[in-house]
Amino acid sequence: MLSVGSKERVALSLHSLRMSAEKFVKGKTIELRKKHIGPSCKIFFSHDPIKIVQAKGQYMYDEKGGSYLDCINNVAHVGHCHPDVVKAGAQQMELLNTNSRFLHDNLVLYAQRLQATLPDKLSVCYFVNSGSEANDLALRLAWQYTGHKDIITLENAYHGHVSSLIDISPYKFHHLSDTEQNQSVHVVQAKHSGVYGQIPVQKILHVRQAGGIFIADEVQVGFGRVGTHFWAFQLQGEDFVPDIVTMGKPIGNGHPMSCVVTTKEVAQSFTSSGMEYFNTFGGNPVSCAIGMAVLDVIEKEDLQGNALRVGRYLTGLLEEQKDKHPLVGDIRLKEQYILLSADGPHRNVLKFKPPMCFTKEDADLLVGKLDHILTELEEALGMKLHGALSVENESNKRKLPTDENGRQNPGGLAHGGGSSLGFAKQAKRISS
Amino acid sequence: MLSVGSKERVALSLHSLRMSAEKFVKGKTIELRKKHIGPSCKIFFSHDPIKIVQAKGQYMYDEKGGSYLDCINNVAHVGHCHPDVVKAGAQQMELLNTNSRFLHDNLVLYAQRLQATLPDKLSVCYFVNSGSEANDLALRLAWQYTGHKDIITLENAYHGHVSSLIDISPYKFHHLSDTEQNQSVHVVQAKHSGVYGQIPVQKILHVRQAGGIFIADEVQVGFGRVGTHFWAFQLQGEDFVPDIVTMGKPIGNGHPMSCVVTTKEVAQSFTSSGMEYFNTFGGNPVSCAIGMAVLDVIEKEDLQGNALRVGRYLTGLLEEQKDKHPLVGDIRLKEQYILLSADGPHRNVLKFKPPMCFTKEDADLLVGKLDHILTELEEALGMKLHGALSVENESNKRKLPTDENGRQNPGGLAHGGGSSLGFAKQAKRISS
Repeated sequence: MLSVGSKERVALSLHSLRMSAEKFVKGKTIELRKKHIGPSCKIFFSHDPIKIVQAKGQYMYDEKGGSYLDCINNVAHVGHCHPDVVKAGAQQMELLNTNSRFLHDNLVLYAQRLQATLPDKLSVCYFVNSGSEANDLALRLAWQYTGHKDIITLENAYHGHVSSLIDISPYKFHHLSDTEQNQSVHVVQAKHSGVYGQIPVQKILHVRQAGGIFIADEVQVGFGRVGTHFWAFQLQGEDFVPDIVTMGKPIGNGHPMSCVVTTKEVAQSFTSSGMEYFNTFGGNPVSCAIGMAVLDVIEKEDLQGNALRVGRYLTGLLEEQKDKHPLVGDIRLKEQYILLSADGPHRNVLKFKPPMCFTKEDADLLVGKLDHILTELEEALGMKLHGALSVENESNKRKLPTDENGRQNPGGLAHGGGSSLGFAKQAKRISS
Repeated sequence: MLSVGSKERVALSLHSLRMSAEKFVKGKTIELRKKHIGPSCKIFFSHDPIKIVQAKGQYMYDEKGGSYLDCINNVAHVGHCHPDVVKAGAQQMELLNTNSRFLHDNLVLYAQRLQATLPDKLSVCYFVNSGSEANDLALRLAWQYTGHKDIITLENAYHGHVSSLIDISPYKFHHLSDTEQNQSVHVVQAKHSGVYGQIPVQKILHVRQAGGIFIADEVQVGFGRVGTHFWAFQLQGEDFVPDIVTMGKPIGNGHPMSCVVTTKEVAQSFTSSGMEYFNTFGGNPVSCAIGMAVLDVIEKEDLQGNALRVGRYLTGLLEEQKDKHPLVGDIRLKEQYILLSADGPHRNVLKFKPPMCFTKEDADLLVGKLDHILTELEEALGMKLHGALSVENESNKRKLPTDENGRQNPGGLAHGGGSSLGFAKQAKRISS
C-alpha cells in the first residue's frame, strides 16, 4: 500500500470528485441537451461546446482537466466556488431555509449590510430571486408611485427576460414590429446622451420635475466592479441618489438571489396599493448568508481595489494593442483556453467580465494571447499593422465599447474592460 | 475535563449552532425588519411574530428552543434541511456553479429525470428560478404559439408576483378597477366549472379546437402532494396531456429554482421568434443537483405514498371534527405550537400544507389540538355542539376548501387536507 501525503490526498480527491461529476460522455450530454433543453437556450461554442465540470477562482476546468481563464463570468464575482461563500451556504442549508414570513436575523442583517453601501435614503429592501424579478418589481414600484406606466429606456438596453422587461429592452425587442412594441416605452438614443447609462444628470432632474423616478439597474455592474465605486450610479457624483436600485448577478456569486432597494416613500406608496408582496424564496436565510459572505470577501480581499488596479493595468495593455492592431476579424479564443464573449449592437465589442479576483498576470496572459491572434490574423489577411481600415465603419469610431445595457466603463473589471478596442465581427459567437 | 460522547457532541454542536445563529435579540430583529424590509412583505403573527432559527423534518424551532409542528410549509417538501438534499447542494457548490451556456450533466440528467415523471409529449425543459418566472415564461410560450394574448384564468386563482401574473391572478387583481385590469384576461367562475382546476376536460378540448393551449400550474400541487398521482393534472385521467406544465415551490425543497416543461412544438415555435432565452441562474449545476436529490428522497422514502396514507387518515379525522364542530371562529394555533394558515375568498379555509414527511402521529396531534380549540371556543360562545349555524353562509356549503389557485384536493397532503372544514374567519392572519 502506498502512503499518500495530505496534499496528494486533496489532489486525488478533487480529481475523483471531478471524474465522478461526469455522468455521460460528451456526445451523450449534447444529445440529451438537444432533446430536453429548450432550443432558445443557447450554448457557448455551439459547433463544439465545452463541458465544464469544475471551477475555482478565475479558472474553469473541462472534463479532460483542460483549464480555461474565465473572462466571461460576471456572476462568479469573488471567484468560482469561493470557500467562504460555499461554507456560509452549506452551514445555513443545514440549519434552516424557509420563507421571510418568520423573523430571521440573516434577513435584517443582510439588509443592513447592503444599506450601508448605499446613500441613507435608499433604506428599504425587497429580496427576490433574479435580476429579472428585481427589475419587474422595480417597474411595479415605479408604476404605483408615479401613477404612470411610461418608461424611458436606453437604445440597446437589456433588463431581463420576463415579459414586462422584454417591453423595456430594445436589445430584445428591436426586431419586433411596431404593433408588438409597448407604446408606453420610450427609447432614448445612446448618441444623444451622456456618461453614466448615457443619460445626463440634467435629463434625470427633468424627469423628476415631471413626477418621474430614476431606477438604477446595477444587475450587471454593481458590487465594486467599476473599481472606483461600489455602485455604478455613484459615478454620477456624491449628490446623485436614484429612487430605486436593482441588484442581481454577482450578489450571490451564482446563488439565485437578487434585491431591490428603494426609499421609504416609494415603499410606502407600494404598500398603499393594498397588495401584499410575497416572494417564496426571496430573502431566505441561505440566500442572505451567501449574500453576506460575498460582501465579506469583497471587503476582506479588497476586490474593488483589485478591480481598479487590474482594470487600469489591463486598459493600458489594451490601449497598446489598439495602437498595434487597427482591426480585428473573427476571433475564436476558445482554442487558447480563454473564455471571452462579444456583444454590442453590431456584435463587434469584446465583452470582458471576469471574476473580480482576476490578476495582473491573468491580464498579461489575456493580452498576450490576443496580441498573438491579432498578429496571425492580420498576417493571414495580408494587412499592414498600421493604417488599415476597419471592415465596419462603426468599429473604430466608437470611443468606448458598450455592453447590452448600453453602459460605458470607467476602468474597472467591467464590460469592455475600459478598452477602446472595437471588433469588426463577433469574437465569441453564441448561436445554436 | 469532561469526556463527551459523540451523540452529546452532536447535540451540543447543534445547540451552539442554533445559539450562534441568533445575532440580535428578538426586539432588535423586529426593529430592523421594520426599518429595512418592504412593508408589503407580510410576516406571520404580526402582533407577535415568531423567530425561527432552525428546522428539521416537519418541525421548526424558535430561538428559545420551542418546537412547532409545521403544517404551513409546502416548500420544505421532503422535510426541512433534509440531509441528502443539503449534501447534494453543498457538494456541488464546492465543485461548480455556473450558467447553462456550458454543457453539464446535471442539467440534462435532471431534465431527463423530470421528463420521466411526465407524459412523453412533455419533453422540453426551461429551467428558471421561481414559480413566478416559470408562469411568466409559460405565458410567453403560449402567446408565441397561439399568436394571441387572451388567457382564461380561474376565479380566485394566484399564479405569481411578477407584473404579467398579477394580470392573470384574480386573487390579486380583484380589488383593482376595471381600467387597471388586463382586457385580454377572462375569468371563469369556479361554480361554473368542474373538478381539476375546476375546468372540465370538455371545455379544455373546446379551447384547443379554437387554437388555444392548456397550461397546468403545478407550482403548489406537484411532486406527489396529491398522493394518488405525481402531478395534479394527472387526476384528469391518463389521456390528458397539458401543453405546458410549470413547477416551483417544492422542486428544490427551498432552494430557489423552478421549471417549465412543454412539447417540442411549443418549444420550436418559441425558437422561431428568433429571440434567445437566457436565464442567468436557471438550471445551474447546484440547482439541478438539489432537484435530483429531492426526486431521490421522494422515491426512497415513498413520500407520495405517505401523502396518500397520512392524507386519507387525516381526512378521516377531520370528517369526525366536522360532525362534532359545526363552526369555527377566530383560531390562533400558534400558542399550541402548530403552524397553520387560512386562505380562500373569505379567508375561511384552513390551509393545510405540511412537509411530505408528516406522520399519522402528527395528524393525531394536529386534530387533537384543533378539537381542543374548537371545543373551548364553542363553549365560550355558548354554542351547542350540533346544529349551530355558520357565521358565514358560504362556509358550510363549500364541499371542499380551495386554495389560492382555486383547486380542490383529492386526499393527499395538499391544501385543505381534503377536509370539508369551512372556517368562518381567518385562522392564521397575515397582516402587518
